[in-house]
This record gives sequence, C-alpha cells and structure tokens, in this order.
Amino acid sequence: MSRSVRVERASTVAAGLGGAPTPAPVAVIGGGQLARMMQPAAVALGVPLRLLAAAPDESAAQVIADVVIGTHTDPGAVARVADGARVITFDHEHVPPDVLAAVVTDDTPAHPPAGALIHAQDKLVMRARMGRALPDDPRVGQPRWAVVTGRAGLDRFRAALDGPVVVKTPRGGYDGHGVLFLDGRSGLAGRSELDEWFGRFPDGLLVEEAVPFVRELAVLVARNPSGGTAAWPVVETVQVDGMCAEVTAPAPGLDPDLARAVTTAAVAVAGDLGVTGVLAVEGFETTDGRFLVNELAMRPHNSGHWTIEGAVTSQFEQHLRAVLDLPLGDPAPRAPWSVMVNVIGRHQDRDPFGRTAAAMAADPGAKIHAYGKTPRPGRKLGHVTVVGHDLDEVRARARGAVARLHDQLDDRSAATGEETR
Amino acid sequence: MSRSVRVERASTVAAGLGGAPTPAPVAVIGGGQLARMMQPAAVALGVPLRLLAAAPDESAAQVIADVVIGTHTDPGAVARVADGARVITFDHEHVPPDVLAAVVTDDTPAHPPAGALIHAQDKLVMRARMGRALPDDPRVGQPRWAVVTGRAGLDRFRAALDGPVVVKTPRGGYDGHGVLFLDGRSGLAGRSELDEWFGRFPDGLLVEEAVPFVRELAVLVARNPSGGTAAWPVVETVQVDGMCAEVTAPAPGLDPDLARAVTTAAVAVAGDLGVTGVLAVEGFETTDGRFLVNELAMRPHNSGHWTIEGAVTSQFEQHLRAVLDLPLGDPAPRAPWSVMVNVIGRHQDRDPFGRTAAAMAADPGAKIHAYGKTPRPGRKLGHVTVVGHDLDEVRARARGAVARLHDQLDDRSAATGEETR
Repeated sequence: MSRSVRVERASTVAAGLGGAPTPAPVAVIGGGQLARMMQPAAVALGVPLRLLAAAPDESAAQVIADVVIGTHTDPGAVARVADGARVITFDHEHVPPDVLAAVVTDDTPAHPPAGALIHAQDKLVMRARMGRALPDDPRVGQPRWAVVTGRAGLDRFRAALDGPVVVKTPRGGYDGHGVLFLDGRSGLAGRSELDEWFGRFPDGLLVEEAVPFVRELAVLVARNPSGGTAAWPVVETVQVDGMCAEVTAPAPGLDPDLARAVTTAAVAVAGDLGVTGVLAVEGFETTDGRFLVNELAMRPHNSGHWTIEGAVTSQFEQHLRAVLDLPLGDPAPRAPWSVMVNVIGRHQDRDPFGRTAAAMAADPGAKIHAYGKTPRPGRKLGHVTVVGHDLDEVRARARGAVARLHDQLDDRSAATGEETR
Repeated sequence: MSRSVRVERASTVAAGLGGAPTPAPVAVIGGGQLARMMQPAAVALGVPLRLLAAAPDESAAQVIADVVIGTHTDPGAVARVADGARVITFDHEHVPPDVLAAVVTDDTPAHPPAGALIHAQDKLVMRARMGRALPDDPRVGQPRWAVVTGRAGLDRFRAALDGPVVVKTPRGGYDGHGVLFLDGRSGLAGRSELDEWFGRFPDGLLVEEAVPFVRELAVLVARNPSGGTAAWPVVETVQVDGMCAEVTAPAPGLDPDLARAVTTAAVAVAGDLGVTGVLAVEGFETTDGRFLVNELAMRPHNSGHWTIEGAVTSQFEQHLRAVLDLPLGDPAPRAPWSVMVNVIGRHQDRDPFGRTAAAMAADPGAKIHAYGKTPRPGRKLGHVTVVGHDLDEVRARARGAVARLHDQLDDRSAATGEETR
C-alpha cells in the first residue's frame, strides 16, 4: 500500500533562475497532463511551479510540490494560486475572464493575457478577429462561417453553401465536445443538442463550411512578452472522433512554400493577438493547396508533444521561457522524423499502462509517457513518441508501441519491434 | 514573495505503470540533484516518487510531491520513506547498512541491495573485491594499493612504490573530500588530517599508487534484477579539485578495443557484485593504453548527466527502469558528441543562475540545468549540456554557456554563441 506523507514546506526555496533567495513561482491553472508535462522542464530550469488542481490526485498534482486545491472558476482559489506568483499561466483556456482580471497585477501578469486568451476561449471572437489578423496571403485563410441564433439561420447558411457544415458552441468545447457535423442533405430533426446549444448561447452558435481537406495540419509557435518568437516545423495531425490521435513532424511532403506561409501566418497571429507562451494553430490543408484555420490554443498542445524528444527545445520548456520573458530556445528538430501516438482509454481495455513492460521490451527506444490518469474510455491517458531517420519505421514503431499497450500486438517479430530498429 | 501552500494529499493516486489503482511509490533516499533529476523521468513513466530529504528546501524536495523530512542515518525516517514503497533506491551511498537492513522486505527491496552497495560505500571492500570481479583482461585493472593503519605502514608503501600516492578514507568521501595526494619525496610532517583519519578508521586507510594517466574515463552501465544490462559509451571526464567539471561523450579518440574492454569489465562488475540500477565505474587511461579502476558509484552519476539530452534513454530513466525491473531502454547516443560542463559555485560569483537569460540569449540550443541550490563556493549548482556534430563547436558552446553564467564572457560575437551554430 502506498502511504502518503504530509510535509510542511518551507515558505521559501533556495533558488530558481538565480537572483532571489525566495523565487516566486509560476502559477499554473489546471491540473491536467499539460501542466504535468511542464514539470520536467521546470525542474531543469530551476523554476518552481505552483499548481491549481481540482483534486490532489489530478495528473499534474501528483508530480508538483506546491499545489492549491480548487477550481478555475472559484475566484478565491484562483487568487490563492496567483498570490505572489511571478506569472500566471494555463493548462487549459477555461478560466473566466472576470476571475482572471481580478487577480492580475503588474507584478503578477497572466501569460497569455486575457485579451489574447479570449480568442482561444470563444470561437466567434476568434473567427471575427482572424479576418484581419491573418496576413494577406491567398494560401492561408478561414473556412466560410457565420453566426446563427436559431435553426432558421442555420438552414439559410446550409442552403447557401449547399454542402456539409459544422456547428460549434462558441465556448466550452474540447476534444470533439461541442462540435456537430451536418452533411449537406439530411434534416435537423433529431438533433436535439442544437436546441440545448441555442438556448445556452443566445448570442449564437458558430457554423462553418465543412472543409473538404487533404489532411489536417498544425503549427506551434511561441512568443514572449518582449516580442521574441520561435516556430517548430508544421506537423500533420490525425484526429479520431474529434480527438488528436497521431502527429507526424514535420508534415510529410508538405509544399515548403505552404509551410512557410502557414508559419508566417501563425507568427503574425501571435503578434496581432498579443499571445504570450505557446500558440497552436490547427487547420486544414485543402485540395487546392491552401491552409484554412480551424482552431487556436494558447498553451502547450497535443500536436507538440513530439517536441519533448524531437526538438532541441520542447514546447513545455519554451512555454515556460516565454511566459517568464526569457530568450526563446532553439525549436529545431533533433531528428528527421518524429511520430507521436496518443494512448486513449478504450471500453475493452481498462489499463494500457499495465503493459508498459511488454511495450518497453519490444522497443527499447520508444518513449512512453503516462499521465497518471484513471483509465476511462475516450480519455487521453498518455502518449508514445519515436524519433528517427526513416518515416515508415518511426511511424510503425510508435503505432506498434501503442498497440502493445492496448494488447493488440503480441508477436514480437512484427515489424514494429526489434526487426525495425 | 513566494507563498507556500500545504496540501493534504490523497492516500492514493490514480495510476502509475498501470495496474494498481494505488501504485506504490519508488522511495528515494537523499534530496540532492540526482534525486531531483529522477523526477522528470518519473513524471514521464508515471512512477510516483517518495523522497527522504533532510530539509524541505533541498534540491529534490522542491520538485517532488511526496516528501519525508529526515536524515538517512535515522532509522525512523528511513522506515517512514520505505513504508509501502515498491522499491528503495538512492541519491547517494551513505545509508548505513544496518539502517537499510532494518527496512528491506521481500515486498520492498533495495536496489542496489546492501550487498552490492557496500562496494560503493567502502573503498577497502571495493579494492579487495575488484581483484576477482574484474575480468581477466590485461587492459583493465586496478592501481597498486594497500591497507595502512598508521604512518609506518604508509611510509613502507611509499618506499616500495618510490612515487606519488593517494591516501583515501574508506568511507564518507565525495567530491575530493577524504582524499589526500602525497608526492614521492615530501615527508608527512604537517599532514595532521592523517592522524585524524587513522583515529577514525582503526581498520586502516586505503593507499594507492597515484597513477600517471593520460586522462580520466568513466563508463556507466545499468542492470536490472532480472539480469538485463545496458551500457552507454565510455566518456572522458575532467576533474578539478577532485570534482567532476566536464564530460565529453564519447571519449574522443578512445581506442575501440579499450572502449570494449572497459565496457565489458563494467558489465561484468555489475553482474558479479549484483548491482541493480546505474553503476558508474570511474578510472584512469594510462600511458600504456590500460584502464585502471578508481571508484564505483551505484546511482546516477555526474558523468552521465549528458544522457538527458544526449542519449535515447537518460541515466535517470534507466535507473528507474532498472530498479523497477522493467526492460532497459536504448542507451545509444542521439548525436555524435555531447559535452556537459558543471556550474560550480565560486567565491567571487554568488549567483550564476541570475545570468540565465544572458546565457540563453547567446545560445538558444544550450540546455541549462539549475538544481535549485543556494550558491556556495565549490558546490555543484547546475550544469549545461550541448549536443551536436562538431566536437570543437559543441565543447566551445557548452563552456561558453557556463562562462556566461559566471559572467566571464560578454562578447556575444565570441566563438561560443551565435556564430558557431
């Protein structure tokens, strides 16, 4: 049995980025795996983290010494984690603007600031702003979109478009929640969630054309308050059920001109919106060679987990550097190819990390990351990254390791284990 | 001002290497930087750590959630950290054998076990054992050595050798403490520490020939309880004042036959002694192309810090895999060259990590590690690693980053910053 020990911590720690004998912590709001994965970078940099987590057994709360228990919507809890911090940053975008505004001071800014964060919180605000934030480049744009406040408006948009559309709640969606795909022909009968959404968002829902795309791409950039920026290579992402499942870095075969255009656009958006920290821009590569922005995130992002092993500077280290206004690190890849595959809970498989030893035995070079989360179907429980020189091999190994965790491979001679290394 | 928050932790956490809903922690005895650097690897593997630290502001205690405050010589404190742990391991070798024996059970073993650990605790035991543990290979051996219980015996050894010698206390030495160099001619007058040592160690001191060496080498291997082993490349180390200052991996220009002999010997020693976890074998490359064993350490080691960025599997991840009897990871280098330079406190420079931003600005690819320790002269405060393809450049960059932290470089056009990348 594990036994837990309660420790009274000293009110100061020794050092952290030097200088102060009492370094102020970086306050991180939200106890998920993104906050958890900031901790290794914080350990190396000597930066103390203070976490706001909903429960002591949340993913990040298991691995950080200084934890406030409370929710991100509770002004008192947010004030406690922010008290004396040198900066406030985020595991997710769901802190209400008024709660954040109440705790931000000159000495304790939020990075990203509320004025930038709103574009990752509210998809209608984001769509309206992107029209002028994106550079004037015909290869980068947005899907056609509109605000609709009822079924009549939605029907008009669908009729004008004559094709499939996607309806999104402006706020609160994640990993496929709050998103509804409607094909071009079928009616709205039976779509009862629409009425609930229209009721909950009287200012309207976002409706967009469902872009016919070749594949999905994402680009991550970082920006610090002094205006320094750094960009990792554009990656290809594969979504399953609205959730990121696999990332290949860099995106194989991507036209270098389009890669440059996408990267330039993301850096421009970060500057225009005043983003500080990591900005993820997800979008679609269209059949006619354009990139259409889908969503923004202002924090480390699933599409950047490959950078832990695959880049000179990981997204987690870069996010901390950025929010502390330190010079940004080199985002260059450390290998020609990196593939990251998520470990997602399944109904028939309650405990993938119980098979860690088998996955390690089959591939000693696969990098396995477990988030310490109780397995549930559809829940992101961890990921595996493999880096190397041959894309087919790297991808097969990453998929093979995850398949072993899910007990879907037991033939050690399969082309995912020893024989491919 | 930093404000600290006390959290009552749940008695169980969610998951860790799967399986148990209440995973037992790995107990780590000792709160220094080696325990601290285990935490990033533990976070990725989903392995909870429980730390025994002497104070809440010790290096590792700042970054681990579950901490017992107490000393490694206090049986009660060691029992508390061991209670219910799945394995006990170490930041240092100084736990008294009887204290360890009192807490080890079938369910909570120590890795390395006491029977192996004694060879890293007591240099006389180590020297006596090495004679039969080392393979029968003329290229690998030990310096000539003897046990001496007083000045008369010491004089006899010196006379027989007719050259410089090194006197070492059997136990308690580290970073040059407990080591005395005596050249071939000068007398022992004024060496008052000798009388203190002879009084403290009535069974004798170790005296060895001071080997005339070309350079110092180290090899790190890992071994798990099932007998699996893995070895990183042999590295070159540079010691200053008895303390590791710089490590180059792999050792430049090392004869491949000697590298193989050294690695084979280290793996053999690990097996013979029953080492579990990481074993460091430090020694001398002689002018006649041999390797003579100097010291053993059974834990992650300063000569392996380069593996965090420079190898597929870091020594910290490998140590955790090994003590948990998981399959070992791939120890292959990720780049042709890695150079690690320690950041050591200096009298005239109280706060090197106060200049982190300058070092980052000059070299965005240098990996800076701060241990969160209060600066003191001669204290290991952190390290910098650079990896790459050109050894001269990699070494210049690593040294340049540390020089910037020490405020000894302010010319950004020097060959340590932008121009060399």
